[in-house]
Amino acid sequence: MERQHKKIPVGVLGATGMVGQRFIELLQNHPWFEVVALAASGKHNGRSYAESTVWRLSGSDMPATAAALPVVACRPEEMPDVKIVFSALPGEIAGEIEIAFAQAGVAVFSNAKNHRMAADVPLLIPEVNADHIAAVAQQQRQRGWSGFIITNANCSSTPLVMALKPLQQAFGVSKVLVTTLQSISGAGYPGLPSYDIIDNAIPYISGEEEKVESETLKMLGDWREGQGFADAPLVVSAHCNRVATREGHLECASIELERDASPEEIIATWENYVPEPQSVQLPSAPVHALHYRHEHDRPQTLRDRDAGNGMTVTLGRLRRCPILSYKFVMLGHNTIRGAAGGSILNAEWCVHKGLL
Amino acid sequence: MERQHKKIPVGVLGATGMVGQRFIELLQNHPWFEVVALAASGKHNGRSYAESTVWRLSGSDMPATAAALPVVACRPEEMPDVKIVFSALPGEIAGEIEIAFAQAGVAVFSNAKNHRMAADVPLLIPEVNADHIAAVAQQQRQRGWSGFIITNANCSSTPLVMALKPLQQAFGVSKVLVTTLQSISGAGYPGLPSYDIIDNAIPYISGEEEKVESETLKMLGDWREGQGFADAPLVVSAHCNRVATREGHLECASIELERDASPEEIIATWENYVPEPQSVQLPSAPVHALHYRHEHDRPQTLRDRDAGNGMTVTLGRLRRCPILSYKFVMLGHNTIRGAAGGSILNAEWCVHKGLL
Amino acid sequence: MERQHKKIPVGVLGATGMVGQRFIELLQNHPWFEVVALAASGKHNGRSYAESTVWRLSGSDMPATAAALPVVACRPEEMPDVKIVFSALPGEIAGEIEIAFAQAGVAVFSNAKNHRMAADVPLLIPEVNADHIAAVAQQQRQRGWSGFIITNANCSSTPLVMALKPLQQAFGVSKVLVTTLQSISGAGYPGLPSYDIIDNAIPYISGEEEKVESETLKMLGDWREGQGFADAPLVVSAHCNRVATREGHLECASIELERDASPEEIIATWENYVPEPQSVQLPSAPVHALHYRHEHDRPQTLRDRDAGNGMTVTLGRLRRCPILSYKFVMLGHNTIRGAAGGSILNAEWCVHKGLL
Amino acid sequence: MERQHKKIPVGVLGATGMVGQRFIELLQNHPWFEVVALAASGKHNGRSYAESTVWRLSGSDMPATAAALPVVACRPEEMPDVKIVFSALPGEIAGEIEIAFAQAGVAVFSNAKNHRMAADVPLLIPEVNADHIAAVAQQQRQRGWSGFIITNANCSSTPLVMALKPLQQAFGVSKVLVTTLQSISGAGYPGLPSYDIIDNAIPYISGEEEKVESETLKMLGDWREGQGFADAPLVVSAHCNRVATREGHLECASIELERDASPEEIIATWENYVPEPQSVQLPSAPVHALHYRHEHDRPQTLRDRDAGNGMTVTLGRLRRCPILSYKFVMLGHNTIRGAAGGSILNAEWCVHKGLL
Repeated sequence: MERQHKKIPVGVLGATGMVGQRFIELLQNHPWFEVVALAASGKHNGRSYAESTVWRLSGSDMPATAAALPVVACRPEEMPDVKIVFSALPGEIAGEIEIAFAQAGVAVFSNAKNHRMAADVPLLIPEVNADHIAAVAQQQRQRGWSGFIITNANCSSTPLVMALKPLQQAFGVSKVLVTTLQSISGAGYPGLPSYDIIDNAIPYISGEEEKVESETLKMLGDWREGQGFADAPLVVSAHCNRVATREGHLECASIELERDASPEEIIATWENYVPEPQSVQLPSAPVHALHYRHEHDRPQTLRDRDAGNGMTVTLGRLRRCPILSYKFVMLGHNTIRGAAGGSILNAEWCVHKGLL
Repeated sequence: MERQHKKIPVGVLGATGMVGQRFIELLQNHPWFEVVALAASGKHNGRSYAESTVWRLSGSDMPATAAALPVVACRPEEMPDVKIVFSALPGEIAGEIEIAFAQAGVAVFSNAKNHRMAADVPLLIPEVNADHIAAVAQQQRQRGWSGFIITNANCSSTPLVMALKPLQQAFGVSKVLVTTLQSISGAGYPGLPSYDIIDNAIPYISGEEEKVESETLKMLGDWREGQGFADAPLVVSAHCNRVATREGHLECASIELERDASPEEIIATWENYVPEPQSVQLPSAPVHALHYRHEHDRPQTLRDRDAGNGMTVTLGRLRRCPILSYKFVMLGHNTIRGAAGGSILNAEWCVHKGLL
Repeated sequence: MERQHKKIPVGVLGATGMVGQRFIELLQNHPWFEVVALAASGKHNGRSYAESTVWRLSGSDMPATAAALPVVACRPEEMPDVKIVFSALPGEIAGEIEIAFAQAGVAVFSNAKNHRMAADVPLLIPEVNADHIAAVAQQQRQRGWSGFIITNANCSSTPLVMALKPLQQAFGVSKVLVTTLQSISGAGYPGLPSYDIIDNAIPYISGEEEKVESETLKMLGDWREGQGFADAPLVVSAHCNRVATREGHLECASIELERDASPEEIIATWENYVPEPQSVQLPSAPVHALHYRHEHDRPQTLRDRDAGNGMTVTLGRLRRCPILSYKFVMLGHNTIRGAAGGSILNAEWCVHKGLL
Repeated sequence: MERQHKKIPVGVLGATGMVGQRFIELLQNHPWFEVVALAASGKHNGRSYAESTVWRLSGSDMPATAAALPVVACRPEEMPDVKIVFSALPGEIAGEIEIAFAQAGVAVFSNAKNHRMAADVPLLIPEVNADHIAAVAQQQRQRGWSGFIITNANCSSTPLVMALKPLQQAFGVSKVLVTTLQSISGAGYPGLPSYDIIDNAIPYISGEEEKVESETLKMLGDWREGQGFADAPLVVSAHCNRVATREGHLECASIELERDASPEEIIATWENYVPEPQSVQLPSAPVHALHYRHEHDRPQTLRDRDAGNGMTVTLGRLRRCPILSYKFVMLGHNTIRGAAGGSILNAEWCVHKGLL
């Protein structure tokens, strides 16, 4: 879709970390947004982004426009021109800072966990629950904000919810048992010590299983005007593991459908899924939100994480489960679709819907 | 336990491969068994084991006694002195060869899949179904063999069955949904190309899920004299994944118990489990068949695979499952407990019970 | 540079292997060349490339045009339309096959080692020894061929030679002691078993040190009309190691210069190096043949291998050597610059110079 | 060698880190030493070692005796009973603390870099420069200490010096050009972020090349009574790299000998090297200080690091170098021989020589 006007000035909070760097990489040459301000926690001595940051993404160098920007403190008055901030702040500090920006009239698109489960904050994936942005009006009214906060989901909840949504619509989903094999980049930087993960797998990620089990219900649930969010009538059980891959979360799920369907019907449901971001061709929307691969050993973390520039969720291995109805495998890029790219798509959706 | 007599002469079939090497490593200085013959498929020109084999195990060098032995063909007449053979042959050729040895009066302890599900062949883990060796008498009678075949389970079935057995006895188990993170050594040598697995996870292992789903029922089932094996009344659903670890299979399970139990009861059941191989102190039996770790992030593949010299199954992370009764994590060493070490323990059990 | 005519029809020999796949990936949408024929050794039953090949490159899917082509045998009569073949054949069979194509009038651009050191075959890197293509006329005359063979260098020789060439021109280079850290993809597919390299480094690659020590002299040497190739007056000593990286060969060199130069002069020599492929902007020539990075810890295998779409050699860490004159680090992408991409650039150079 | 008396009480400084844990692991059941005190930097609230430390070594659990000890501050008065402390402190704080212990009458065996190059502090490897402990008398005299400090070398200097010593004695060595492939454990814990090293190699380790280039000269040099240490007349040039291995530093060296020798002579010199720690059979001395492997592709990091319980240096691939005299490969375990095990051996040597 085209958008002829001047680009919207945006800022990045937590710009020096791994997800912050992804934001800057993905916003480079964005057709609608222009990065004009970068902020980080810690001391600031007027140093530029280039001077204060070691670029850690492997496929790119630091964009020159970002390199020249000063790194400022995470306060609205330090970024007076921005209409949008993308927040890659850690949970320890994100809560208050994001509120300050929303109060100051800024649209906050956040990766942090702090406000995700709030009763008036959308936990948004435009391909899944695009209508949840209706909660923004109530959020602004109740809190007296001129800005607002919209969050995106945890990186392991995102591909799961995207895979489930069309099945929920078509057949109903009542139970989901999911086991994840998550990449090291999900732990940020410096994150996981190499001595902990080379030749190892760790069956625990702090707080992760709880997030998958709760966020999924909110995202697949309804926004009811005047009443708030209603969880989807679904039970989720998650086992989360860390493995020695760089990017991409692989997930094995068994699900119970409310009405039976053949494997062909399920695959067709995924393959024919064209939600609004794809229909209206938002700049960051991949051509296919979901891609089902028919090979017997796909998706694989390495080979499929970059599908749709990291925004497509890849599915495969659908087969009957002897205990629940079906089992299958899915994969999503955790720092693109599950973090920075997801937030940018959220902002694009809000622009498209006139919230900005 | 002591055993004063002369050592029993044994042979190894498939001696040059990864599991074959494990057999030779583990049988070095064994108190009951002495390796006197080594066989492999392929051409044999009277070359010694040292000349025809590259030793691939990282913690050891090739034992000198094995190094000097000639590598012979996999035929009983080439190994006239052995009373026992340990078979590490690949499934493509194991079936016929193992039968030939059993016909010739040799006790065959096999890692191969070929005879595992046969109606008169024990699929044996002495800590789980020690009484299944009663099938040997029927096997010999029906087939007219003076020797016999006893198999051990697939490397991913083994820790699962060991974890389930005491729970089955104490509370009943009706459903098991398990997702594995399996090591590369499970694919043998050369096995998995490095280009396929570095920075990758692969959600598929050929034939593996079917083995876990069927072998578990046989091992947890009963041997009924005159009737044969009866499967345990249990449903198993498996997702099997390959990850970039060297040794050790990590498995995440959700299980349904037939009668409820508290977490403390379950852990106590595991911790108090002392089956016969431990009671009678078979040479390869670890002090603890099962070890429950109370840390929040254990077992881990790297840190726990060598527990009990690779023969202990390590458990952890027991918690309620929102869908089935409980979820937990287990880990077993795939080429020791799940292969060579398991077979040796099977042979020790048979010696102890007077079958040899 | 532009080239308005119809695309040149080309074929790929050894199309199913790792380097063959790189050729197909890189030739997709090439402005001058069009892949019209694919060949591989082994049995051929008229199956298409898609049916007979598992695509192993992680960043892409099999190009649709290649997928539909039949895989034929490596004989000129099976590929009657091609003017050029790119050979990714293994050394065991490449020699005779490539000769057959050259005899049949085809221009052969080969990755194989077989003809590299022949007295009338260019070992070509257009940024280094562009004039060596003059040997083709003699090759055709002596051998009576209407086609010809041009080879590219071993993947570890390539970045070394590119780094040395401008220094040789400016200061003279008399000694080079190089130690490599080479990626697993250099061993092809299936290549290196994962069990050999995860958590390991191997200080040996068969034949590799000899290639680096001899190829470098030929490439940095002269083609003298009527006399043949004269080696550069240089001594090279190589230690070659395999490490657990996917793509990219990192190399640490100490060199002796014939006349002294300051570090600044050396770096400037590299940074100002603009050889002909860059001047005339061949389609596969990167903007910078060499890129010196000033960070203290670069180049790194992961972060720098994709520089210039894998065609730029990245340099860094220049410092005085207490034994020879200087030491520095270099990195090149082994399956792009050091293999398929290098061969394509060679073909482009020959087209540019009118040999085709 | 036997030693009948009561065990010597020892302490560990920096007990919670990676090298500190190695000390505790290696001192468990030591015949001469008994760990009675553990100290670490940071806050201390009377918590036990078990309560304040996550055990990170993969092959073992925390020794029960250590687990029960309180963690105290790094001050002599907190560890009044110890005769020896082993220091695994980081360089930022080791200097002053180690001096305080030496002043208080304690024998300090340190892994830290701080005092290594001091004019009166031995940089000791008992197989190399056992007589350097003569400097202790001068150290005590000059500094007025009743205790003393003895250091061990950097983990990458250690195997190099051990390989060179017998060659220096037999043939003279004038030049050494060494390139290392070092393991992640060399960076301590948390040390190297996994995101920096998986699928990567880094050609830089802060301060490492300088240490190799200077420590080698001191260790291979002489202690001259009344004059001090005299560097060996040797030039060393080092390139240091980090690769994705867990333990073990692999090093490729080219060396110049002062008088020529055949490969057989050199290998024999290594194989016949039996220095005093081996002659007198110190408890931590491996049977072979050096082990030359004749395979064409050894030593390898994974397969050879545990040779001699991590205390043997493994050599291989000796061949002529076209530039210097010879090239070869060596491997040493960095956290055992190159750190904790080396220090313990130093202490054993001092006990043997009556310094304690």
